Amino acid sequence: MRRIVSLFIVCFSLVSFGAYAAETQHGPATISSPDHVLSVSLTATPSGVTYSVSRFGEPVVDASRLGLRFKNARALSTGLEITGVKTRSVDNTWKQPWGEREYVRNHYNEMTVDLTEVRASQGADSGRHFQVVFRVYDDGLGFRYVFPKDSGLGKVEITKEMTEFNFHDDATAWWIPSRGWNRYEYLYQKTPLDEVTMAHTPFTIRTKYGLHISVHEAALVNYSGMSLRRVSSRHFVADLAPWSDGVKVKTKAPFVTPWRTMQIADSAGGLIMSDLILNLNEPNKLGDVSWIEPGKYVGVWWAMHLGKWTWGSGPHHGATTKNVKDYIDFAAKYGFKGVLVEGWNQGWDGDWFNNGSKFSFTKAYPDFDFKELSKYAAKRGVRIIGHHETAGDVCNYEKQMNAAFALDEKMGVRQVKTGYVANGGELIRCDKHGKIHNEWHDGQFSAEHHIRVLEAAAKHHVSIISHEPIKDTGLRRTYPNWLSREGARGQEYNAWGTPGNPPSHTAILPFTRMLSGPMDFTPGIFDLLYPKAKPNNRVSTTLAKQLALYVVLYSPVQMAADLPENYLKHMDAFQFIRDVPTDWADTRVLTGEIGEQVTIVRKDRHSEDWYLGSLTDEHGRFMKVSLGFLTPGVTYEAQIYADGPNAHWKTNPYDMTIKKIKVTSADTFPIRLAAGGGMAVRFTPVKK
Amino acid sequence: MRRIVSLFIVCFSLVSFGAYAAETQHGPATISSPDHVLSVSLTATPSGVTYSVSRFGEPVVDASRLGLRFKNARALSTGLEITGVKTRSVDNTWKQPWGEREYVRNHYNEMTVDLTEVRASQGADSGRHFQVVFRVYDDGLGFRYVFPKDSGLGKVEITKEMTEFNFHDDATAWWIPSRGWNRYEYLYQKTPLDEVTMAHTPFTIRTKYGLHISVHEAALVNYSGMSLRRVSSRHFVADLAPWSDGVKVKTKAPFVTPWRTMQIADSAGGLIMSDLILNLNEPNKLGDVSWIEPGKYVGVWWAMHLGKWTWGSGPHHGATTKNVKDYIDFAAKYGFKGVLVEGWNQGWDGDWFNNGSKFSFTKAYPDFDFKELSKYAAKRGVRIIGHHETAGDVCNYEKQMNAAFALDEKMGVRQVKTGYVANGGELIRCDKHGKIHNEWHDGQFSAEHHIRVLEAAAKHHVSIISHEPIKDTGLRRTYPNWLSREGARGQEYNAWGTPGNPPSHTAILPFTRMLSGPMDFTPGIFDLLYPKAKPNNRVSTTLAKQLALYVVLYSPVQMAADLPENYLKHMDAFQFIRDVPTDWADTRVLTGEIGEQVTIVRKDRHSEDWYLGSLTDEHGRFMKVSLGFLTPGVTYEAQIYADGPNAHWKTNPYDMTIKKIKVTSADTFPIRLAAGGGMAVRFTPVKK
Repeated sequence: MRRIVSLFIVCFSLVSFGAYAAETQHGPATISSPDHVLSVSLTATPSGVTYSVSRFGEPVVDASRLGLRFKNARALSTGLEITGVKTRSVDNTWKQPWGEREYVRNHYNEMTVDLTEVRASQGADSGRHFQVVFRVYDDGLGFRYVFPKDSGLGKVEITKEMTEFNFHDDATAWWIPSRGWNRYEYLYQKTPLDEVTMAHTPFTIRTKYGLHISVHEAALVNYSGMSLRRVSSRHFVADLAPWSDGVKVKTKAPFVTPWRTMQIADSAGGLIMSDLILNLNEPNKLGDVSWIEPGKYVGVWWAMHLGKWTWGSGPHHGATTKNVKDYIDFAAKYGFKGVLVEGWNQGWDGDWFNNGSKFSFTKAYPDFDFKELSKYAAKRGVRIIGHHETAGDVCNYEKQMNAAFALDEKMGVRQVKTGYVANGGELIRCDKHGKIHNEWHDGQFSAEHHIRVLEAAAKHHVSIISHEPIKDTGLRRTYPNWLSREGARGQEYNAWGTPGNPPSHTAILPFTRMLSGPMDFTPGIFDLLYPKAKPNNRVSTTLAKQLALYVVLYSPVQMAADLPENYLKHMDAFQFIRDVPTDWADTRVLTGEIGEQVTIVRKDRHSEDWYLGSLTDEHGRFMKVSLGFLTPGVTYEAQIYADGPNAHWKTNPYDMTIKKIKVTSADTFPIRLAAGGGMAVRFTPVKK
Repeated sequence: MRRIVSLFIVCFSLVSFGAYAAETQHGPATISSPDHVLSVSLTATPSGVTYSVSRFGEPVVDASRLGLRFKNARALSTGLEITGVKTRSVDNTWKQPWGEREYVRNHYNEMTVDLTEVRASQGADSGRHFQVVFRVYDDGLGFRYVFPKDSGLGKVEITKEMTEFNFHDDATAWWIPSRGWNRYEYLYQKTPLDEVTMAHTPFTIRTKYGLHISVHEAALVNYSGMSLRRVSSRHFVADLAPWSDGVKVKTKAPFVTPWRTMQIADSAGGLIMSDLILNLNEPNKLGDVSWIEPGKYVGVWWAMHLGKWTWGSGPHHGATTKNVKDYIDFAAKYGFKGVLVEGWNQGWDGDWFNNGSKFSFTKAYPDFDFKELSKYAAKRGVRIIGHHETAGDVCNYEKQMNAAFALDEKMGVRQVKTGYVANGGELIRCDKHGKIHNEWHDGQFSAEHHIRVLEAAAKHHVSIISHEPIKDTGLRRTYPNWLSREGARGQEYNAWGTPGNPPSHTAILPFTRMLSGPMDFTPGIFDLLYPKAKPNNRVSTTLAKQLALYVVLYSPVQMAADLPENYLKHMDAFQFIRDVPTDWADTRVLTGEIGEQVTIVRKDRHSEDWYLGSLTDEHGRFMKVSLGFLTPGVTYEAQIYADGPNAHWKTNPYDMTIKKIKVTSADTFPIRLAAGGGMAVRFTPVKK
């Protein structure tokens, strides 16, 4: 761990409580961040409760309403008074079992505001009370509603969370639409803030004066996911994903809402460096998690996207014992820990998309000998990565998942990739009468289902990589077996669509989707054009950019997604994938502009090596960075995988220059990225 | 000098010449930069000659016309053929006598294209020929027209330089208007590129995809200054400042034009790191320049702007022997090398603005005993800095300047501040018949005058700090006694106007005006509100930001501009001004966005100290930077002058926190800037 000035390295906790009297029962009650960067104020007037955010004394979020509406009770929004304010300061550092950095500092000032209905004017519901808790960091803030047991609420059905985000300044927004046909798999739009309609979070904007703000949520538990709906100019309101009956959240006191978060930074890279989302989640609930294994994997997957193999049975069935043995051999030979096998289980034949109930998660196809492969893999130090595609039929899956994870455990499986391929709003829930209901991927049902899966899997020492998931809100801190997930357009779009993901896509992800947590993007396609398989499709990157993705797009599990034969044709470039780890002691952002370019360096958690990944959109870049992150006084060999002199994603994607040079922390290092290109570097200390 | 990867440290020169045949006589003739970042092509069709610029294979400047028009000869623009192409590569490193860095690398590929008129079709003028020379660097390019003795031109009067800049992409531009009433002393406008009218250079834009381009010129000698006039959408044409008779340039073959330059970088800071302008100038012509002394000064100046003293004679005359002795005492006590004295000479009384001819540059006011003060200063290790305000009457000044510099030399004066206070187009030239003509500050007359001054001054070992000057084009390389100049809105606007320079002004200057060279901004005002002197005016910065200016706005001479009594009230903050040097071994840009914020670190040329200056516009900033520029393994004391927790330029400008902490090159350092604020840091090695 590198020293950060004025950061205490050793883990410690400094907690001080203070009582604070708001000036009146209307407020404002105000709290500032530790270094007086951000301030939040809450005001309660008879007509409503609002909060506002300022930075260095200048407004960032203007007065924005707080409150909730219920199905069978009066809204909690007007007629509220401040009946108590408590503040405290917290500064501690905690250790991640795996992650972008080993130690995370959690340094904030907290203000808890008690709000109580004025008895005189409210009738039956009067006297109800709740709290709004603000945690204010120098690089962002979170707030949540807290309803204690005696809040007067009891069982509630929330029909609207009135939380607003009333941005003070014009801005550019990068966003994907919510409540559409899809989950989160859209290309990002870049528009003026006042042209956004309804957007998923993380929702990232850059104000006209260069302030970067990303709105998201943390700790989405027993609640519905929040989207942002624009109601006027720069004024947004929370929009919770509904249950199929239209209610947004079904719960009972005591309960808390997820944290509504804003990461706020002057540089785009500052957003990436923020640990706000993790800090606002609860600590590890699973106890000993030494069985959780970050690592790299290959697998039976891309061949299906190329149309070479099939998920279902038949002459081209991919998940055969023979094919998987070949993959196990390849994995063992080149140092991969895992072999993902999709299409191993019964249920894939026919229209599986509309028949998720037919999937078995314990019965293999006859040509897939799970037991035999389990032994074969174990002997070679490799593990099978299981696959549970539900087609969104959660009902069917929940019935089988305990047995499935038990089988996985028996077979030495430590990671399972789950899948919820179903259109937006079409997750299948069956009630206790066996009736089917269609629910959203980001609704409360989905939020609760995913945690049920994590808990069931943990009992069998299985970790989860969710595809078509609910969005990440940092729950990996609480459930460290939630290793990774999809939740954005990944590599497979480059096999399906024309033109697939444009070069800018992976220059937007780090500042949007990746702020929520790890993504199983599945990088590493080396046959960028696959002319035989899909002549009209292609991967819109250079070869070097495929390598850069391993560092830029963080995930504790990373796939080498291409076919083994394509790696064998580029053994020089493949070396980087063999070398790059997936678990880090430290992370720094060296350059970055949203949708343009990003350069990230990360230190291996298990060696003194550093890795650099840099990538650009469709425009070439030439930048110089300081290597000051390297350990002073140590000479490193930089193993550089760079775009060649004539590289261009469209016309010459394979042109790559691999070279080794000696560098130290005192050096300035040139980063040259071709149009649609990238750069990957391993820095390894020179043995004396 | 810090090592830069792949840069050869020792000074050497690698020159290779190559002959290159354009594909046809129409071209294109093409050359790329050393690392294949930029490419330039020249095409000559019967209808005209054009160049274009691409970067990583993508267009940056579309086909843009080249050519010249003359008063008494056919234009050189059509009917030209390529009759030869020569290329060479150059890579050497040269040493600056003073500057932002000690060693400057000059690494480019050059292409010289011979263009000849087609005899058959042109009549009398046919057969004329000239060259266009391109020097292409990875971070920019320059090109110039070269007319050899046998070009067929002889004596010429240029009426138009047809050079165009046809930008490919939409962009945002930061610019000041040219050909207005003023010289360069405007607030910068930020507009879409296609709303620019006519702009001075450096003219800086940021394209919609984050490419930063600054158009300027280098080595403006015997030629008129170039502005840019927009003719359609993103299409600009060179607009030369005219002589009073309308002719743009009067010269004769052989001659060369100044280099037309484009600095091109992905980051805003990359523009600052470019040495293109200096590299395109000729080496030092003055020989031994050990008599040139960078340094800090105080002086009789701000008191006049505040209305406390007067330039002219009378009861409040500033430049009295008594007052100047006080300044000399102050300078000696606190380590300043120079004491500027304005208003010492006869001519200030009455309407001096319209009576520049009345100025004497050798006759002092009776209450100013030059000889006595010269001795007094010398005894205290201080030098008087002379002052020659011409009110634009170059005619009067040129008659006296040799005698004036001789007097200065006798008096131990090593630096003279010159002034050309006159409206745009009102420099006074007298022809050999004694007739008066009004010329532009950026016209050929002014360009030639300034060099005459430099040469006259050099004979007496005097260096020049020009105010209301012609713009800088890097001639300090050739004439190292051209120490600094104004050429933008400086500090005095904060005394004159309401509201003076807004907080963003100094966040724009580094990416525009400062790209041309040093500026005598005169920072360091500590009495930010001067309520007695000018209650409606103020300096729109925090106190800490005044300190940051010493590092951010480079000049080899820097004034501590405020009254001595105001420094004595803030001795803690004053310590930074006492410490900060003005001559640097190295410079790095750590953060920067045009008009928003900038952070620059510079290493003292005469010690192991580093200095950091960071400043922002009207918005507070909170950023973290790597201290990797420090020497590895050395512990430094960081002496930090930061905005206090409640600082704000408008409401609380004096809130400042000064602290000392220990740091090393491995640290990450927080930069916290209040709204309109700044930060200054001295890093000094801890003695063991």
